[in-house]
Amino acid sequence: MNLLNETHNPALRSWLASANTSGCDFPIQNLPFAVFRRRGSAEAFRGGVAIGDQIVDLAALAQTALLGGDAQQAAQAGSQPKLNALMALGPTAWSALRLALSRLLREGVAQQAQLQACLVPQAVAEHDVPAQIGDYTDFYTSVHHATNIGKQFRPDNPLLPNYKWVPIGYHGRVSSIGVSGQAFARPRGQVKAPDADVPTLKPSQRMDIELELGVFIGTGNALGDAVPITEAESHVFGICLLNDWSARDLQGWEYQPLGPFLAKNFASTISPWVVTLEALAPYRVPFTRPADDPQPLPYLDSEANRAGGAFDIQLQVGLQTTRMREAGEQDAAISRTSYRHAYWTLAQMVTHHTVNGCNLQPGDLLGTGTLSGPTLDQAGALIELTQGGKNPVALPNGETRTFLQDGDAVVLRGWCEQPGAARVGFGECWGTVLPAR
Amino acid sequence: MNLLNETHNPALRSWLASANTSGCDFPIQNLPFAVFRRRGSAEAFRGGVAIGDQIVDLAALAQTALLGGDAQQAAQAGSQPKLNALMALGPTAWSALRLALSRLLREGVAQQAQLQACLVPQAVAEHDVPAQIGDYTDFYTSVHHATNIGKQFRPDNPLLPNYKWVPIGYHGRVSSIGVSGQAFARPRGQVKAPDADVPTLKPSQRMDIELELGVFIGTGNALGDAVPITEAESHVFGICLLNDWSARDLQGWEYQPLGPFLAKNFASTISPWVVTLEALAPYRVPFTRPADDPQPLPYLDSEANRAGGAFDIQLQVGLQTTRMREAGEQDAAISRTSYRHAYWTLAQMVTHHTVNGCNLQPGDLLGTGTLSGPTLDQAGALIELTQGGKNPVALPNGETRTFLQDGDAVVLRGWCEQPGAARVGFGECWGTVLPAR
Repeated sequence: MNLLNETHNPALRSWLASANTSGCDFPIQNLPFAVFRRRGSAEAFRGGVAIGDQIVDLAALAQTALLGGDAQQAAQAGSQPKLNALMALGPTAWSALRLALSRLLREGVAQQAQLQACLVPQAVAEHDVPAQIGDYTDFYTSVHHATNIGKQFRPDNPLLPNYKWVPIGYHGRVSSIGVSGQAFARPRGQVKAPDADVPTLKPSQRMDIELELGVFIGTGNALGDAVPITEAESHVFGICLLNDWSARDLQGWEYQPLGPFLAKNFASTISPWVVTLEALAPYRVPFTRPADDPQPLPYLDSEANRAGGAFDIQLQVGLQTTRMREAGEQDAAISRTSYRHAYWTLAQMVTHHTVNGCNLQPGDLLGTGTLSGPTLDQAGALIELTQGGKNPVALPNGETRTFLQDGDAVVLRGWCEQPGAARVGFGECWGTVLPAR
Repeated sequence: MNLLNETHNPALRSWLASANTSGCDFPIQNLPFAVFRRRGSAEAFRGGVAIGDQIVDLAALAQTALLGGDAQQAAQAGSQPKLNALMALGPTAWSALRLALSRLLREGVAQQAQLQACLVPQAVAEHDVPAQIGDYTDFYTSVHHATNIGKQFRPDNPLLPNYKWVPIGYHGRVSSIGVSGQAFARPRGQVKAPDADVPTLKPSQRMDIELELGVFIGTGNALGDAVPITEAESHVFGICLLNDWSARDLQGWEYQPLGPFLAKNFASTISPWVVTLEALAPYRVPFTRPADDPQPLPYLDSEANRAGGAFDIQLQVGLQTTRMREAGEQDAAISRTSYRHAYWTLAQMVTHHTVNGCNLQPGDLLGTGTLSGPTLDQAGALIELTQGGKNPVALPNGETRTFLQDGDAVVLRGWCEQPGAARVGFGECWGTVLPAR
């Protein structure tokens, strides 16, 4: 578990004014990672760290004499087009770079001009998926989501008997993961109406979102070596936003007995910025279970996990229709929740994933599953918000939605905020549904 | 569809005597690809082509002046430690290299000495997984396997309603895929006996095999572009043997509702040699459906697929216990079948996978799913062969097996053979279960 240290001090201010503004996602206490280049340029992508409305270019920084030791090694590893080498270095190196950047970005430092030369405005940057993702695993850690979805298929028995024992997960598709801004054609697939004799091939009519967090693995484990829960978090590099788009009509017809496939693998969108666990340390909250529920098996239990294995990350889903966009209107919030409601922690995800000896590798991505909260208005998917498409969501301009229409853009946002701590934000994760080809 | 050409002529003989022996898997009509190096050396892995008991070293060949044009380009691409670049070149380049090698390896050619300098004996070689696999998808194309497995869970309704319409598939784990010779610790996991109140964590007691073929994708498709069935086979580089090890007790407890996860992702073993579709052309057979079954939807149907979309590949599973190994006994065959019994062809797998716009990439691996034949002795998994562990398999030395014991080694073999065509073999795919850690 990351302890609080000088980098978390909420009184810290940066010499970069934009980092000190109220509501800024990227103050000096955050320092998340991405890969970037100047938009439309032929530059190589390289790692960067967000500060205010700027990006610290790690490739440029590594060429200066501003860093030493582990921090310099981390900046060099972070200079590549993907962050896998940085992720593989482990927590000591990540923390050293964070501390060095925190000190260099503070008001009054002598090296301000040298660091300023390493800044690129976020307004001119474009991003790529931050790692070469070897494997993508999606979990199912919200008991509220599992119950809401289960009710639609099995009204009398919504939650399967294994749910409260097993952190359910399954493998997803890597090739179609894109970064914020991803636009994709509405997928076609086989669908069969309940009263139809035969299925037909057509564009999905039940295009949905899934509000998730993505967990990037840092250091891996060798095949055959389980990661004990006391070490699980040291294998986690950081967290991003993840929209696991889902075609519910395809899913309903195809998913038995081996799970979702074409209903999910046409696109998954992540935010460019990866927030480290160290930055999130002030927002740890206890992981608890209702007294009547089974407690986790010993391999999924630890004192640290109980004391602070959960995170209070505020989450919001926004929807912007074509009409709203053409009228110059912002997206409208359709759901708000927090990651604190998850039934399984990220340490439990890592430990369960490896208990059979499965090897995780630097850059692997774990999804939390849809993070629906306890009430329906906190649900992270339209199929829940609209109760299977029966109760449309009303938008401020009078439009309604059950599932997504062509041209709809969805934005996920995440942030941590509480008295006595600096805000830590995740930025935005945008994606747009285009007409079927 | 690959047509027969001069490379398939069964009368062709090589100047390498070992390629002309009866029962050889690698005659001059086969020419499969692998990556290799001399065992225990610090050499880089590079591509090679099997001929008799030798390997044509593609890196060495590319340094000679023996090839030109597309064949030379293919040999250069195949000189790297993984075959992705060769796979990405497409059928024209693969065929050009095959034709050039066929001509150079024939009896009586003038360049024999130059090519001989590029040979490395298979006896001194070690192999690696032949591609950087971006994504691994496992299908479920044997209706006999689906029915046998389904009977154990749902005796009255073994086959789900979607099976005969949808080529069911799901995503698997890439990181734990190893090459023949892989040995892995028996996985631990949560299991729950039907009469137990709570699950426990323990080593799997129902360790099983799955006899499959693996299909390596050659050229990919862009995200959003479906691959029509008339073009599907041109995206396939070749076929290998695949053992998709399965822990049935973990699977039974975890698999609902999102499919198998820890029951499968601890290890999957493939053969080093990848046999091209062109080499398999003489063994194409018609793809047919029972008259009472639904015919494939139009996007999964083509004249070429009906005429020759299936392949008659003979398959065999061998088991060698520790006692057999210590007594110097060979493995004993416990199942024999053919790929011709599959309910969905590989062209249908590729087309279905991409119909929603999902992008395949060079080096992606598709598994066929367990290739059980129509009768139980043709089943590709112990859970079928032993009817859920009730009827043990008898071995020649008096031992019996329901599921695998520590030290058991399993070998998959595959080959094509018929009058008027040369034998085309896949070599062997070995794996061993070690005690749990």
